[in-house]
Amino acid sequence: MKVVTHQLRCIDCGARIAGSDVNSIFRCPICNGLYDVIYPWSATQGEPSAPVAENRPNASALRWLWQERRTSTLPVDQSGVWRFRDLLPIVDDASVVTLREGNTPLYDLPRAAKSIGLDWVLAKHQGMNPTGSFKDTGMTAALSVAQQRGFEWVACASTGNTSAAMAAYAARAGMRSIVFIPEGKIAWGKLSQSMDYGALTIQLKTDFDGCVRVLTELVTRFPIMLLNSVNPYRLEGQKTPAFELAEQLEWQVPEHIIVPGGNLANGSALAKGFSEMHHLGLIHRIPKISIIQAEGANPLYLTLAENGGEELIPVKANTRATAIRIGNPASWRKALRALRSTGGWCEQVSEQEIALAKAQIGAEGIGCEPASAVTFAGLKKFVAQGKIGREERVVLVLTGHTLKDSNYTIDYHRGELFTAEEDAAIAPADQVLHSALRKPPIVLEPETDTVFRVLETQMKPVPA
Amino acid sequence: MKVVTHQLRCIDCGARIAGSDVNSIFRCPICNGLYDVIYPWSATQGEPSAPVAENRPNASALRWLWQERRTSTLPVDQSGVWRFRDLLPIVDDASVVTLREGNTPLYDLPRAAKSIGLDWVLAKHQGMNPTGSFKDTGMTAALSVAQQRGFEWVACASTGNTSAAMAAYAARAGMRSIVFIPEGKIAWGKLSQSMDYGALTIQLKTDFDGCVRVLTELVTRFPIMLLNSVNPYRLEGQKTPAFELAEQLEWQVPEHIIVPGGNLANGSALAKGFSEMHHLGLIHRIPKISIIQAEGANPLYLTLAENGGEELIPVKANTRATAIRIGNPASWRKALRALRSTGGWCEQVSEQEIALAKAQIGAEGIGCEPASAVTFAGLKKFVAQGKIGREERVVLVLTGHTLKDSNYTIDYHRGELFTAEEDAAIAPADQVLHSALRKPPIVLEPETDTVFRVLETQMKPVPA
Repeated sequence: MKVVTHQLRCIDCGARIAGSDVNSIFRCPICNGLYDVIYPWSATQGEPSAPVAENRPNASALRWLWQERRTSTLPVDQSGVWRFRDLLPIVDDASVVTLREGNTPLYDLPRAAKSIGLDWVLAKHQGMNPTGSFKDTGMTAALSVAQQRGFEWVACASTGNTSAAMAAYAARAGMRSIVFIPEGKIAWGKLSQSMDYGALTIQLKTDFDGCVRVLTELVTRFPIMLLNSVNPYRLEGQKTPAFELAEQLEWQVPEHIIVPGGNLANGSALAKGFSEMHHLGLIHRIPKISIIQAEGANPLYLTLAENGGEELIPVKANTRATAIRIGNPASWRKALRALRSTGGWCEQVSEQEIALAKAQIGAEGIGCEPASAVTFAGLKKFVAQGKIGREERVVLVLTGHTLKDSNYTIDYHRGELFTAEEDAAIAPADQVLHSALRKPPIVLEPETDTVFRVLETQMKPVPA
Repeated sequence: MKVVTHQLRCIDCGARIAGSDVNSIFRCPICNGLYDVIYPWSATQGEPSAPVAENRPNASALRWLWQERRTSTLPVDQSGVWRFRDLLPIVDDASVVTLREGNTPLYDLPRAAKSIGLDWVLAKHQGMNPTGSFKDTGMTAALSVAQQRGFEWVACASTGNTSAAMAAYAARAGMRSIVFIPEGKIAWGKLSQSMDYGALTIQLKTDFDGCVRVLTELVTRFPIMLLNSVNPYRLEGQKTPAFELAEQLEWQVPEHIIVPGGNLANGSALAKGFSEMHHLGLIHRIPKISIIQAEGANPLYLTLAENGGEELIPVKANTRATAIRIGNPASWRKALRALRSTGGWCEQVSEQEIALAKAQIGAEGIGCEPASAVTFAGLKKFVAQGKIGREERVVLVLTGHTLKDSNYTIDYHRGELFTAEEDAAIAPADQVLHSALRKPPIVLEPETDTVFRVLETQMKPVPA
């Protein structure tokens, strides 16, 4: 595998720097903007007057190569990220750190689609990655760069999916990892994976921003690679599900992609993937990418409503969808760019809407963590607003596995997720759906007649 | 896809019956024995004087076909079970119920191997299936049969991985599913998936055996397909990881396969897969398949020690590895046959050995549920006993994802898994490993100097 040359380019001022010169802060020294990874073949992308880059990969050759690799037994080919390495910055074979991420299923959701009058709705389930979330596709890329550059330590501030993925890939590489978490804000279930994969977990007596401050200082002073999502290599891995999706759909991309919005890097990573494919002639159209936030953690939605995207309005985040409980998202400008360049929209959904959408996805036999379900809740709104029509094809990006948050599921089915007040705020039509989908256990005497009498009362059709 | 003819054959008395005649009890009416699925090409398997079946599939053609299907975008080809449908009983395309199960990764465990002086140890991670356990490969087969035969209801008695898988596949098929659990023995975390996937959960005021009694009566009286592991179609799905493993190893099978032993169907399913491949000339040798039980749930181990496998000695099961907490396993005769026909062994391991093995697998960046870790704990014993040598190749079958039991992991790292007495019983060498692998969170003031001083004390190498 040859090392592909790349640069980092500031998304705000356009300044460029060699990739290997940046390992810690990942912000432009001139204007503090975030970086994109660019390649010789993509540097002139979007500049209509620029000549075609000489070494631009050939679309047909790529399609053929990517398909051929699926029959290989090499780890680097079996990875759903590294199979697309021709469009990645990295690396020599020996540096690739892989857990066979990617290759995630694309499911149809026939009952969910029917319930909102669409012909078909698909779900690209990134929660089927090795550690149970979409973060794996990014971490394989970033950890491989860290390995190639000789790092022995990596670190992030997180209490959830990011730390689980970082810890797993660091362990795979034989590196040590550090997770900073704010004291007293511990979700033990979400942290079990970091411990299992051997990360060093440090609870700081401060809030999340305080953790980021200590982390930033540490990676500046010591040889530790920063793995929060400002690290642009993570987004290079996270763009590959766009390639995989296009391939699964025989290169006929859907009209709409809908993603959950937390720290806001994921939508822009997918937009970069689609945009690069379009630039190379692999696809002929770029789907609209839309971002859905929880009402209690809606800084992007609020910013667009209040000032059209001029300046971020941070919020104090509060939602039970913990994976998107972020009030001051690092990648908001990248997300804004993705919305604008693809023509997508930003929407917000309530806690009750999230819970119902999650139950509907579960009833399809698929399941997801609460944050993933905002995509279907948001889709309902777009359909109601007339923005998405019956024959348009929609792909929801489910970001986490249902096992990531078992307690949420249990509370929902036992009727303990919402207060009486929250329950009362649910619209009548949704009340009916909730009551059909809720499956609290029934306690019975062990007699066949009793059991079957109860079963008969339950023999109503599966809700649409 | 053509419907492949098959029969069911009693493993004890050899009586045969058409597959379509059996849907509920799945036990031989003559002798109460369990059934195997047999095919025209496999019916004379193991009978040296029998003529080669006329319609025996060709090994080279199968290898080519199975590889080609990996490049297909059809769900039935993307499934790691149905890709091998030429050796499955089923079914017309329209009846296949799939969540894209299978295609699970084969990981190397370099540090674990080194720690016990072996050249290489691999892990086939069945916990990377859609619902997080190996049960998915079996459920896709059994639910497809249920769908083809027109069932609307399916049922099982279980509180764990089986119910999760059944609920998911039933939901996918638009069928209803019933899970019977004994009252008061509820592990809510393990049940969250059944609820999420919409199963009807019934707690009976009895023990597990009482649940099985009610279940058996119900499926006899009403059109509900029984999905406990006595259903032989589940095992047809569970044999396919053997095919997948052989393919991943370029048809050079390892010397040893090690599986956890709970209800004891899994080892025999894999043995059937290897045996069929050998019969068809796909592989030239059958690996030794060994089964590891927890000391507190060791009926097979005990039975072999006490009466050489004559009659099962049930036990009152007690282990924190909940997935194998089974004292009266249904498939013990099938497991015995697998041990004998492949030359494998049965071993038992302690709770402390399980916890250490799990932490070591976690430290490789892979993770698994506690029951899966018995495989590595058992391997250590085989090596110590001189049964497995340095250059022999071993594949551990990891059956469940680490997210299936987060609490176990948290308790382990916080030092709350064992009593002081249990801790004291750990061998000194293992104490050292435990203390290197335990990663309880450290609470610190948010000052860089403090943090880095602590980090420096932690900068010991990753334990072997």
